[in-house]
Amino acid sequence: MNLQQSAQVYEIPHQITYYECNELGHPTLSMVMSMLAVVADEQSDALGLTNEVIQGTGGTWVIVSFNGNLDLHALNVGDTVILGTRATGYNRFFATREFWLRDKDGQKEYARVTSLLAFMNLTTRKMEAIPDKLITAYQAPQVTKVPRGKRPKRIPADAEVMGKQYHVRYFDLDVNHHVNNAHYFDWLLDPLGERFLTSHQLTSFSIQYRHEVRADHDIDSEYVMATPLNSCHRITNNGELCTLAEFSWK
Amino acid sequence: MNLQQSAQVYEIPHQITYYECNELGHPTLSMVMSMLAVVADEQSDALGLTNEVIQGTGGTWVIVSFNGNLDLHALNVGDTVILGTRATGYNRFFATREFWLRDKDGQKEYARVTSLLAFMNLTTRKMEAIPDKLITAYQAPQVTKVPRGKRPKRIPADAEVMGKQYHVRYFDLDVNHHVNNAHYFDWLLDPLGERFLTSHQLTSFSIQYRHEVRADHDIDSEYVMATPLNSCHRITNNGELCTLAEFSWK
Repeated sequence: MNLQQSAQVYEIPHQITYYECNELGHPTLSMVMSMLAVVADEQSDALGLTNEVIQGTGGTWVIVSFNGNLDLHALNVGDTVILGTRATGYNRFFATREFWLRDKDGQKEYARVTSLLAFMNLTTRKMEAIPDKLITAYQAPQVTKVPRGKRPKRIPADAEVMGKQYHVRYFDLDVNHHVNNAHYFDWLLDPLGERFLTSHQLTSFSIQYRHEVRADHDIDSEYVMATPLNSCHRITNNGELCTLAEFSWK
Repeated sequence: MNLQQSAQVYEIPHQITYYECNELGHPTLSMVMSMLAVVADEQSDALGLTNEVIQGTGGTWVIVSFNGNLDLHALNVGDTVILGTRATGYNRFFATREFWLRDKDGQKEYARVTSLLAFMNLTTRKMEAIPDKLITAYQAPQVTKVPRGKRPKRIPADAEVMGKQYHVRYFDLDVNHHVNNAHYFDWLLDPLGERFLTSHQLTSFSIQYRHEVRADHDIDSEYVMATPLNSCHRITNNGELCTLAEFSWK
């Protein structure tokens, strides 16, 4: 099934189902981010870096941020796409990974996403150095400074925000007992409402995960329109900032 | 990609991704029901009965009920399964369809689900006779009486119910501008809570759709434990009964 597979690049085909799509028949950002997570997991598994091996070091990968450019309106239910990923660099504490979603012929790219990852000790819940045995197999360059990506603009303190409250549900939890990082996008975007979401196309986004949202919590997803085509978002839990995000539209 | 395909039986392989699975790494009922809907749609498309052809008659299929037996705990992230379906019978107003989810070798069945369908006029929103041209291609037998399946037990009027309220979100809507029938299972099951859901396995279910839940509505999902291993559920919207369901556990 793998079209291309080396230590560096990993790709899989995927047919877009209707339950991965929104009202307009285009894949949702949360589903696309879930698909990309699958490719990363499959690459790690193929390199022998399974969840058991990773957690056997006493730690786990944590996603710090994503940045992406998108054209998901060009995709429809039933389309077959190629999902791809490669590790792009790392230093002692951070690693970067790149993802893409393209057509079979390599003529058109629908998404290009970069992620910044850190490594967390499962006992202390603090960041620690990335174990060599978990990173060398990806054959990414070791670098002095890892690019952090564009940071989401913050909502100004005096801004009048719009928003909704959400409750974390049982089915939001994944096999690692965490809320799947991709679910945050549904909470972030839903408050924009049907009228906005059906009349605008997402062109780029950045998201920063600060604190984890946990099972059974109530969260507030708030936003302001910084410009008519630029929205700044935050997710808070009891006033604690969990996630910052920024989306650009056309 | 189709392992078997005739006028009657349609099957496709599917690899179970982590975002189709719950905390325990097993596929969720809502995701399994979404997968089965995909097989039914693909069969209809393969027979030339696309959404355009169906809606060209001025009507649309409506799911009245599902009944199913399940062993989803035997399935894990990464497993490849075969999803299958066939039309099983019809009369003037109702049709039945059967679904299964099995392993590649045909040794083990993980789900067997039957559905009862009716045909609704898109203008009057009332049931009408199934157009011949939409049903004959499936080559199912024409019958006098279509089996209705087991009806979910109702919650007794004086029962003390448990429950939660949910708001229908933008991303709950599918390309037909309806809440995907599969989403109801997340609303139905979530109120049972993590402790119950991680310590029990679903063995069978029945669900009846009475009234559609619509975008932006608030719904109440309530249940009682009829026995320690049998739960009766209902979804209401402003007091109007939308869905009845019953689940059996072990």
